[in-house]
Amino acid sequence: MRRVKDLADRLRVYLVTDDRPDHEEVQDIVARALLGGVTCVQLRRKSEDGGPMLRLALALRELTRAHGALFIVNDRLDIALLSEADGVHVGQTDLPARLVKSRFPGLIVGVSARSVDEAVRAEADGADYLGVGSVYPTSTKGDAVLTGLETLQATRRAVHIPIVGIGGITVERAAEVVAAGAEGVAVVSAIMSASDPQAAAEALARQTAR
Amino acid sequence: MRRVKDLADRLRVYLVTDDRPDHEEVQDIVARALLGGVTCVQLRRKSEDGGPMLRLALALRELTRAHGALFIVNDRLDIALLSEADGVHVGQTDLPARLVKSRFPGLIVGVSARSVDEAVRAEADGADYLGVGSVYPTSTKGDAVLTGLETLQATRRAVHIPIVGIGGITVERAAEVVAAGAEGVAVVSAIMSASDPQAAAEALARQTAR
Repeated sequence: MRRVKDLADRLRVYLVTDDRPDHEEVQDIVARALLGGVTCVQLRRKSEDGGPMLRLALALRELTRAHGALFIVNDRLDIALLSEADGVHVGQTDLPARLVKSRFPGLIVGVSARSVDEAVRAEADGADYLGVGSVYPTSTKGDAVLTGLETLQATRRAVHIPIVGIGGITVERAAEVVAAGAEGVAVVSAIMSASDPQAAAEALARQTAR
Repeated sequence: MRRVKDLADRLRVYLVTDDRPDHEEVQDIVARALLGGVTCVQLRRKSEDGGPMLRLALALRELTRAHGALFIVNDRLDIALLSEADGVHVGQTDLPARLVKSRFPGLIVGVSARSVDEAVRAEADGADYLGVGSVYPTSTKGDAVLTGLETLQATRRAVHIPIVGIGGITVERAAEVVAAGAEGVAVVSAIMSASDPQAAAEALARQTAR
């Protein structure tokens, strides 16, 4: 179980980028957040062409590598491969986790789960970790399903792989997400929209310390 | 030059799919078009998640294989790899052709070029063929640049790799596109919106016969 424990540690403070067009801004926020203790960065760009997205991925790969943090790409397996990311994160309508894992066993594969059923299936498909939520109401993702802390607790009992809570998580709420059974907290706004991203990351790291 | 000539032959009648949501319809049209003599099918789905797009890719891979036609995926290198496509087609803001070609030398890489400069650069980057256009006004691609037949002729003189004309090409216009120097014609509406896709493909094959 060494590997799972290591992965769980590295998922503790998990930053998901937003869609703002200015790459410099994204890199600047990510760099500050890494200084503050972010352990994993996921590049999520829902409406960007492959060329610019790859350039941003390469920049974030360099930043995360320098800080010993994980780098994950949302949905675009090709960009994950070309940027030498540690892994890829897929939603329920993205590329199938089982296929990705079987073809690229060296990649960490994360799967978004909105129910215990989806979580159990993702684990059986070979997922390395789960993103469970939306734990709280969120405006970042318009189509998010609100699962609450109960689904998180039930999922923790049903699967063995690490769980990251996601959706509306703030510094104030981080501790209760971990208490409900999550190994880590994933945030967008709590860091991307913070006036001081480094301080926000530090506070999240403190709230989720084991 | 055997390989280039073979590729040129296989690019002669090049069907690009549209974004219609009904997969069955797409598969049905592609199947009829293949019966009519389409030599290459490109899956282009600008607004579809990876899961459904991969399922459609696998279905079109099977259809094209059964007819000895090429299968190319637009932009999504990951879906090209997972569906065992023959190649990937990238625009100027998609993944860089040079990088894709260096990492996956076995894939055919096509590049969209809107000028002689872009065409020459793409060839230097290792592109196997070019899509040049929009040759005529088109409503399929809102941001298309109109290049006309002149750019096609100038590009033919400037590069050695096969060229496929694209943009507003109809059965009536196909012969003049080939006469201007293109080895093939790429169409969306001329087949996807035809009342008889097989007959449309047959007519395009006749008009482009060498």
